[in-house]
Amino acid sequence: MKIYEYKGFPNPARVRIALAEKGLFDDVEFVQVDVTAGEHLTPEFLAKNPSAAVPVLELADGTHISESTAITEYLDHFAGDPELTGKTPKERAVISMMQRKVEAGLLDAVGFYFHVGTDGLGSDIESYRNDAWGARQKETAVKTMHWMDGILADQAYLAGDQFTVADITAMAGFAFADFVSLDIPETCAHLQDWRTRVSARPSAAQAA
Amino acid sequence: MKIYEYKGFPNPARVRIALAEKGLFDDVEFVQVDVTAGEHLTPEFLAKNPSAAVPVLELADGTHISESTAITEYLDHFAGDPELTGKTPKERAVISMMQRKVEAGLLDAVGFYFHVGTDGLGSDIESYRNDAWGARQKETAVKTMHWMDGILADQAYLAGDQFTVADITAMAGFAFADFVSLDIPETCAHLQDWRTRVSARPSAAQAA
Repeated sequence: MKIYEYKGFPNPARVRIALAEKGLFDDVEFVQVDVTAGEHLTPEFLAKNPSAAVPVLELADGTHISESTAITEYLDHFAGDPELTGKTPKERAVISMMQRKVEAGLLDAVGFYFHVGTDGLGSDIESYRNDAWGARQKETAVKTMHWMDGILADQAYLAGDQFTVADITAMAGFAFADFVSLDIPETCAHLQDWRTRVSARPSAAQAA
Repeated sequence: MKIYEYKGFPNPARVRIALAEKGLFDDVEFVQVDVTAGEHLTPEFLAKNPSAAVPVLELADGTHISESTAITEYLDHFAGDPELTGKTPKERAVISMMQRKVEAGLLDAVGFYFHVGTDGLGSDIESYRNDAWGARQKETAVKTMHWMDGILADQAYLAGDQFTVADITAMAGFAFADFVSLDIPETCAHLQDWRTRVSARPSAAQAA
């Protein structure tokens, strides 16, 4: 398997963490796509992912899978029992729900703030700017952190007692939040504790 | 099972179509939450879904599942083999990818346009307005339609030869697009043909 990515960026980090958690790191070949130089906008790359985003998984038969959740879903089934996306229908539903809430409310919100509320990747690559939307998404991210703190008051991980893809999405979200200097509120002690715990996992090195 | 929803709204339509496709319609009790009257903003409803959105599935044990993709995933496993979300890891990955692209690029884009680029649910319920972001999301929706047209030039449904949850998300997206008077471009003949075909399915009555 081949993964087109840009090391250090938030969405590639999600897949790298999943690979590390599944022990699949040495089964993939990484190909760097320099997003800061606009390499994700070339016709060659757009043929792999029309959404112009990394990461993209290339299977042996040439199929391209984009969207981090779809890639994680694939990798989770590839190597034995699903551990990150759940086994029973109810587990899978809860994990899918929590992953999506963290994705929309934290990772994507921080992403919108970065891309349209700041200079983003620079005006050569990202000319669209909407400071009001950026500010609103930043507020959404902070609200989401408070909600996560409440969830983590009652359970060890975002989707229950086990580490799942919902936690991976959040790890990438917080790495992105660090990058735009958006801190976890001081009052969110459960969330701070969660972050200390997940940051101690070997896979967390991939989120840096 | 109980489903909190608001009949005629886009996200509830996704779950209603899935229920009809799976033959599960008579196994659920629907509870209406009047979103136009702000009933989704009450503490009682927010306890079911902190994201303040319908639909929400309530399981027999009291667990609440929100996010339409998570609900569909659950329903698909509940009644026999998954038909809407795929069986093999590769099928599941492709379907998940296509669903997410249609969700972000069409359904959510039309939703952003409606909620922040028009009067939305009215200023009593939605006071935030960002016309520039609304216009940009409307452009995204049209771009997505052109991309979908290209996909459908080569295959019968959005994720391949079979009807899947990606098509359901698109059906709800186009029902929402109708509501805001955003038409499929005349040049998109494959997409027009797809819409004619999926609209002939019995489940399509749920998207109205």
